[in-house]
Amino acid sequence: MLLNYKNQVDLKLNSICGDLPNLPIYEPIKYIIELGGKRFRSSLLLFVSHMFSNNIETAINEAVAIELFHNFTLMHDDIMDQAPLRRGKSSVHEKWDTNIAILSGDLLYAMVNKILASSKFQSKEVQELFHQTAIEVCEGQSLDMAFEKMSNINIDQYIEMIRLKTAVLVACSLKIGAIVGGANTSNANLLYDFGLNLGISFQIHDDILDVYPSNEVFGKLEGGDILEKKKTVLFINLLSKLSLNEQQDLIKLIDNPSMSNVEKVKSVKLLYNKFDVLSFANELKNSFYVKAMESLKNLDTENNLKFKLQEFADNLMNRKF
Amino acid sequence: MLLNYKNQVDLKLNSICGDLPNLPIYEPIKYIIELGGKRFRSSLLLFVSHMFSNNIETAINEAVAIELFHNFTLMHDDIMDQAPLRRGKSSVHEKWDTNIAILSGDLLYAMVNKILASSKFQSKEVQELFHQTAIEVCEGQSLDMAFEKMSNINIDQYIEMIRLKTAVLVACSLKIGAIVGGANTSNANLLYDFGLNLGISFQIHDDILDVYPSNEVFGKLEGGDILEKKKTVLFINLLSKLSLNEQQDLIKLIDNPSMSNVEKVKSVKLLYNKFDVLSFANELKNSFYVKAMESLKNLDTENNLKFKLQEFADNLMNRKF
Repeated sequence: MLLNYKNQVDLKLNSICGDLPNLPIYEPIKYIIELGGKRFRSSLLLFVSHMFSNNIETAINEAVAIELFHNFTLMHDDIMDQAPLRRGKSSVHEKWDTNIAILSGDLLYAMVNKILASSKFQSKEVQELFHQTAIEVCEGQSLDMAFEKMSNINIDQYIEMIRLKTAVLVACSLKIGAIVGGANTSNANLLYDFGLNLGISFQIHDDILDVYPSNEVFGKLEGGDILEKKKTVLFINLLSKLSLNEQQDLIKLIDNPSMSNVEKVKSVKLLYNKFDVLSFANELKNSFYVKAMESLKNLDTENNLKFKLQEFADNLMNRKF
Repeated sequence: MLLNYKNQVDLKLNSICGDLPNLPIYEPIKYIIELGGKRFRSSLLLFVSHMFSNNIETAINEAVAIELFHNFTLMHDDIMDQAPLRRGKSSVHEKWDTNIAILSGDLLYAMVNKILASSKFQSKEVQELFHQTAIEVCEGQSLDMAFEKMSNINIDQYIEMIRLKTAVLVACSLKIGAIVGGANTSNANLLYDFGLNLGISFQIHDDILDVYPSNEVFGKLEGGDILEKKKTVLFINLLSKLSLNEQQDLIKLIDNPSMSNVEKVKSVKLLYNKFDVLSFANELKNSFYVKAMESLKNLDTENNLKFKLQEFADNLMNRKF
């Protein structure tokens, strides 16, 4: 449904790539842009700005800034997570090296700021929201990294982490689209809340899919999060239902060098099933989804536009992998 | 002479530090701010804005943004250069780790953008200049890194590298101060050129001081650049005066594991003296200093203010270490 908007974003990204200076440090930037992606944040931003204005391109700078900011965070997150792959290809720090990945990420972020500042639509509110969101995304990543080393994370802490790391950028995309399109404050804030709750719901969905994929997905290891002992909603809920001894046994099991990965995932999944953590996760996911739908309902705009946003949300949540 | 302005900057930095959220990822940011520094970019910015307006604080957000951007680049440059020390204390990646240094740097940069966007003085020109300068600083750092692996760098390439890595940020500070203070375009551009040429001259001075310090400086290794085979103006000029065989002998000498660092520096210094590279470097330094002074002369402003800027420039160039 957002294809038309994605095409606008890709056109602009292509033109930016074509205009990059002929310096080696721009190669990783070209590379990560050309790896593609769903561009769903920027497409949503354009869609929402188009909801309130006649021009599909009014918010193109803001859309591209959001998309490239997201790509900048991927470049640096991949270094921190030592992730060898990004969208099935070598991550930037693997293909080049860590120094190049740090610096080309910084350069990409500087480009983001320039693109945003060069917009025809000059708005202190948009700029402050964008940069405040960037601050929150970094805070979220810092919590995610800290949680890796902590054993007792509760669900509230987890929700706060994914709110910052993932959801605020979706929310920010929608609100900036609304402001640039000329929406009133109430609509802009409702769209922020819609994005925030949808983003949280989506991240919980993502946690669930890692262990309970609806389809067999080629090349993706089922239960990768389990093997990394990632504090997902499933893992946190399981830990909260175990005694201290059982918690230690669980960690020992995952760390056991003589057990295969498939066996480990299978054993943990048995525990997930025994303690019904899937129901807990699904209920939590749905509670945020319902909140998102309430914000949508309260929007003061045409029903067919609300319907399109709902359709988008449904598609996102029915993602199979 | 800029002490009054430095105090304003430090006051604002203190207040920013005091207001930081209580999250561990802000600790390295506090740390690098509290390491102090000359704050000469931000003091210059405030001084220039005060040249053209009555209020000493008009450009405080822009000044602090420049200063914190500079600190952000130090955090990431120290990772890339594997520098263990910053201002005589542990660098951030040493005191914490590389991941924390990457992320707290990103967070600091996001704060910079928010501070700039929140300024009372809303100006597309200022924002675009600031972010374009950030792009250029990253380009300069990429050239510096690339030069380490290249044997034949000529003086023009070297000047272009230090222009981007160092000088544009000084130039940008002065021009933004001028714009915010209400200077006309001609004065703003002359101050940019003053800063640019002063910045280049200062960097050449810095290269010279590494080998020819005017004072004995406690704890600083004389000739550190030589041992790192850094492509300084002295080293580049020496290479250009040697035959290919002599160039190879020079590299062998510096790489010789059975020779002490003091001996190596002494040997290379003998070559510097023999080929009179100090005269070349001093002439080059002076040529940019003269250009800076010409821009200053052409400024349409009171002579006592021009005199203060000249005094500042003289102090900077008479720095002994």
